[in-house]
Amino acid sequence: MRTIDWQDGHIVAIDQTQLPAQLVMLQIHTVDELIDAIKRLAIRGAPALGVAGALGVVLADGDQELAQRLMAARPTAVNLVWGVRRVLSRPDAPLAEALAVLEEDVTVNRALSDRGAEWLLEHVGGPVSVQTHCNAGALACVEWGTALGVVRALHERGGLGRVYVDETRPLLQGSRLTAWELAHQGIDHILVADSAGASVIARGMVNAVVVGADRIAANGDVVNKIGTYPLAMAAQRAGIPLVVAAPESTIDAATPTGADVAIEVRDGKEVTHVAGTALAPSGTTALNLAFDVTPAELVTVIVTEDRAVEHGPAAAAAQN
Amino acid sequence: MRTIDWQDGHIVAIDQTQLPAQLVMLQIHTVDELIDAIKRLAIRGAPALGVAGALGVVLADGDQELAQRLMAARPTAVNLVWGVRRVLSRPDAPLAEALAVLEEDVTVNRALSDRGAEWLLEHVGGPVSVQTHCNAGALACVEWGTALGVVRALHERGGLGRVYVDETRPLLQGSRLTAWELAHQGIDHILVADSAGASVIARGMVNAVVVGADRIAANGDVVNKIGTYPLAMAAQRAGIPLVVAAPESTIDAATPTGADVAIEVRDGKEVTHVAGTALAPSGTTALNLAFDVTPAELVTVIVTEDRAVEHGPAAAAAQN
Repeated sequence: MRTIDWQDGHIVAIDQTQLPAQLVMLQIHTVDELIDAIKRLAIRGAPALGVAGALGVVLADGDQELAQRLMAARPTAVNLVWGVRRVLSRPDAPLAEALAVLEEDVTVNRALSDRGAEWLLEHVGGPVSVQTHCNAGALACVEWGTALGVVRALHERGGLGRVYVDETRPLLQGSRLTAWELAHQGIDHILVADSAGASVIARGMVNAVVVGADRIAANGDVVNKIGTYPLAMAAQRAGIPLVVAAPESTIDAATPTGADVAIEVRDGKEVTHVAGTALAPSGTTALNLAFDVTPAELVTVIVTEDRAVEHGPAAAAAQN
Repeated sequence: MRTIDWQDGHIVAIDQTQLPAQLVMLQIHTVDELIDAIKRLAIRGAPALGVAGALGVVLADGDQELAQRLMAARPTAVNLVWGVRRVLSRPDAPLAEALAVLEEDVTVNRALSDRGAEWLLEHVGGPVSVQTHCNAGALACVEWGTALGVVRALHERGGLGRVYVDETRPLLQGSRLTAWELAHQGIDHILVADSAGASVIARGMVNAVVVGADRIAANGDVVNKIGTYPLAMAAQRAGIPLVVAAPESTIDAATPTGADVAIEVRDGKEVTHVAGTALAPSGTTALNLAFDVTPAELVTVIVTEDRAVEHGPAAAAAQN
């Protein structure tokens, strides 16, 4: 089963807000339905958003205004814009191009995952225990993940130790999605509160931090789910690598640095409430920053389908 | 109203597990009831645990085995042991000694709060915006806090900007307790997910990080609620001070370094569930580290009722 797919002229996607309680498939026939699914994070994950953007242009059926609104559904991940633009550039054969984006997601992520696993086995040795954050797995892509793709590729090679999973407040992609994926894949994992990730690293319980990315700036700054930056600082202090696993489409040559990225601010209610229960006194104001910026100097290597860029901010943008 | 007090021959304390939904007072007549309240965090906070230990010895009424069990109720905060031992050392007048511990908590925290506020106004200037973590407020003490005591003292002086409050997973002392306290004190505050604290610091939204401590080792390492260490790293990178506000009784000359402190590991269910709702797939294992260690080199100043120790690990233990 794919996280997102094209069937009988419409998009079929897992409703990720329903996991892990139940596996519900959304049937999406219009761009408005797609935008709604993206905004409420029923469809999420940078690579999956790229595919959603591509397939969404097919649903838009030539309506440029709809395509523009789709690109703006979430501001931070560059892949959404990339997917829309790629299909818009082929008005002669939008469906064929969108399906190409869909299929390439699988092969691209498989390739970058193999590269990441090989890099870790070469530089760290096995078995590699990993701290990860959010969900950069199959649920963030079509059927093969980025950061969790690296984990799976290590597992295939017998080179994986244990995976520590940050719960990833406020929307709990770690506890809800990553734990669910790893359980289905038979991969040994332990859940921790986000604030414990740095201690897991400092206490020597992992050999590497592996995360995905929502946008990589030209200077190599990595924009990813809020909570990545603390892990990056802890990895540097502990002397273990921070591996960022992402497709080339995540690297945005048009964005000079992380400071130039619009960081999505979501509804504070995601922080003050969980599953309908108020956690804070009524009337409490919350600031819900959805992403953070990890400075390039804290990133050990960026692995893509084409290359492993080690401490090379300038190099990261060279290809694009 | 005091967080913990002695009335009519027994302990009266706010049940902090019920906040912010309701304000319930516990009437504690036995050491077993007290141990239960401490273990389930109905009574919590290093200074309050010191007072609970002191009053608990009065409830123990000379039973040494009960006093020993009380000291072991929570392993990390040194104040609990300190409070028990102090009253045990006065078998002639345990109640008078316990009441002295109770009253001193107020004057000691008031004094260290004033010192912390003055230090910040001198070194940072005003208004000072602050990132804090967990609850080191009146609810962690008798009636005047440590870290939030510094915040209150700044507020009294007209030198406070805004307070950013980490929610403090898994038990949400930030959203449940600190937000409640600050709202009652009319202090402007904003709640953030724990993983956003480092971004609040990196983005220049605060001028200082102010936290309490559960134990300070002889070398100046600070053991505090899990999630303090990431804020400390972010503060150092941002060039803003990390102020640790704690009474002298938190400094433990008998513990050489943070690595020598037993870190309490609590039930994983506190991570996998919130308010009875499962957040992760059934069967998910969680590691629930309750505290972390901030290395002395990341601590700008420790303020106590007697002194401000700047970057002085060795000095921190000198008085004890």
